[in-house]
Amino acid sequence: MASTAGQVIRCKAAVAWEAGKPLVIEEVEVAPPQKLEVRIKILFTSLCHTDIYFWEAKGQNPVFPRIFGHEAGGIVESVGEGVTDLAPGDHVLPVFTGECKECAHCKSEESNMCDLLRINTDRGVMLNDGKSRFSINGKPILHFVGTSTFSEYTVIHVGCVAKINPLAPLDKVCVLSCGISTGLGSTLNVAKPKKGSTVAVFGLGAVGLAAAEGARIAGASRIIGIDLNPNRFESAKKFGVTEFVNPKDHQKPVQEVIAEMTNGGVDRSIECTGHVDAMISAFECVHDGWGVAVLVGVPHKDAVFKTHPMNLLNERTLKGSFFGNYKPRTDLPSVVEKYMNKELELEKFITHEVPFAEINKAFDLMLKGEGLRCIIRM
Amino acid sequence: MASTAGQVIRCKAAVAWEAGKPLVIEEVEVAPPQKLEVRIKILFTSLCHTDIYFWEAKGQNPVFPRIFGHEAGGIVESVGEGVTDLAPGDHVLPVFTGECKECAHCKSEESNMCDLLRINTDRGVMLNDGKSRFSINGKPILHFVGTSTFSEYTVIHVGCVAKINPLAPLDKVCVLSCGISTGLGSTLNVAKPKKGSTVAVFGLGAVGLAAAEGARIAGASRIIGIDLNPNRFESAKKFGVTEFVNPKDHQKPVQEVIAEMTNGGVDRSIECTGHVDAMISAFECVHDGWGVAVLVGVPHKDAVFKTHPMNLLNERTLKGSFFGNYKPRTDLPSVVEKYMNKELELEKFITHEVPFAEINKAFDLMLKGEGLRCIIRM
Repeated sequence: MASTAGQVIRCKAAVAWEAGKPLVIEEVEVAPPQKLEVRIKILFTSLCHTDIYFWEAKGQNPVFPRIFGHEAGGIVESVGEGVTDLAPGDHVLPVFTGECKECAHCKSEESNMCDLLRINTDRGVMLNDGKSRFSINGKPILHFVGTSTFSEYTVIHVGCVAKINPLAPLDKVCVLSCGISTGLGSTLNVAKPKKGSTVAVFGLGAVGLAAAEGARIAGASRIIGIDLNPNRFESAKKFGVTEFVNPKDHQKPVQEVIAEMTNGGVDRSIECTGHVDAMISAFECVHDGWGVAVLVGVPHKDAVFKTHPMNLLNERTLKGSFFGNYKPRTDLPSVVEKYMNKELELEKFITHEVPFAEINKAFDLMLKGEGLRCIIRM
Repeated sequence: MASTAGQVIRCKAAVAWEAGKPLVIEEVEVAPPQKLEVRIKILFTSLCHTDIYFWEAKGQNPVFPRIFGHEAGGIVESVGEGVTDLAPGDHVLPVFTGECKECAHCKSEESNMCDLLRINTDRGVMLNDGKSRFSINGKPILHFVGTSTFSEYTVIHVGCVAKINPLAPLDKVCVLSCGISTGLGSTLNVAKPKKGSTVAVFGLGAVGLAAAEGARIAGASRIIGIDLNPNRFESAKKFGVTEFVNPKDHQKPVQEVIAEMTNGGVDRSIECTGHVDAMISAFECVHDGWGVAVLVGVPHKDAVFKTHPMNLLNERTLKGSFFGNYKPRTDLPSVVEKYMNKELELEKFITHEVPFAEINKAFDLMLKGEGLRCIIRM
């Protein structure tokens, strides 16, 4: 790979020319990495709802043409000036949020919301010079959340690249770049259920199932899955979900149903739908005295969380989380190791696979709500 | 004292015959303690807002005639059947909430909300037989929150009695029965600020000042006091408050003022007013990534806590607390030791003292908002 360092690379990328229209595989030019940047050969990428959300651009500022993609695994091709902890050949996971290791957030044990590199969905350019590294015939193609992994090569700030065990199969661990880690960490790092405890998970998509997987790993005795779609229960059993509640099946609020099932409430709950009513239910279904509710789903911009303050004063805790509270560079390597030592099962999240040329099929599957993760082989 | 065990004791008590009317010092009969009960000679009691709140009986079910009082120190006179860990002569603090040591809450490391003995403001009788231990000429006088310390002798469930160091001066440590422990524990046990951190305290009454005292003990570098009454700032300095914000002095919401003062927000905040707007401000003024807001004040029954869920998802935590998360029997003895080893200063909370015969003066002082704690010497 040494021969390409410092040169523009021509390769294939899936370009979103406008909102909601199928991606087009184009030949793009990928500029060399600049200061504190890394150029990565992407081997596998997968599709997450967030890609769909910004591709549809409903209600947001449309930013096009753009290269989406933020869950991926690849190998470092070359590094820019000042990059010391990554070298060509390193196996890496690009991450949509970063870790500069210098700001107050990175220095805090509690936060992973890096001041410099936290997710920015509007910025389509690199921080170093405010320009894109992608172009077609000189016309810039914009980046997405600093990763743009729907391309054979991409350029990423070093702070958004986690170096992992080179023995880890990239076609499996690539799903740890976003959704799976978000759900898993929301349980293991934020809710922290004790062995034998009861956990409710709202929303049984990939993130919710990863939260359930976290509860299973933590040794929860009961994992109650809540979803409006009863078709999701059977497959959820594979992720440790032991009971299922469909709010549509009950006249009373689902938090009351759960409290009755659990002698006053669950020990922990994790909300992974982003609907504010589910957030309120997730909070109000935890036990007084010790219950902790963790919010993971991203709400509508006009959503208002409401509850009676007595629900808090009875010693309940409400916490939000972001990317499972994982610091990408510091913590993701150990999540990969959880997979390597068979503590964490990733295969069950991977329900489909397509070649890069058929990337739009992955979009169709997600839009139809079929499967969990579709791996796109570059 | 042995001569009175098993007998009815005639003594003085301050009886509230009806809502809002001055208490009347009466001669009452105090029955011997029954199973798991303890009869205590009260030496010092103090007045807390909660006594006033239920004495005024505005909007609640009026329960009269009743003997108020729940912050006190005394000596065990006799014990009922089954009481093994208290004996006549023990120095004790009665507490309005209890610790049965048997229920799920008592067995939880996280909760102090005992299922059997948690505060019950409507119950005016003892659990063992559903009757009062106080009477005047055979007419029952009701209890208040299981303590009724405005009496020379009172009968209390053993679960609501903390045995303390007999060397501790009861005229000082009596204030640890309620408000001071509530504020102190909300900081030390729930907010848990690290050394050098910034802490905002909403409401600079006795509970808020105790929360500030907790922040001082924890080594906070800045303690920002928020109150609508600027007269409170000067005295608040004694409790470690370093800066003062009066929301009335600003056009913008106080959470924005605090965020500007602290480069994005405080590390911890503690809400001690019970006003829901202050609760919302206290939550929204903590730093993203690691901020923790603790609610202490008891809100109006119709209050609704509202916030945008993104305020949570940015890794803020909202927790409620009750009696500072202290388990009365297990934890209060160590709070008394904090005073004994001069870590905690109680003298500055004690601004007035009256003899028992003048107990109504203590009510007048509190109604006028003068001072913090008035000790009533029995």
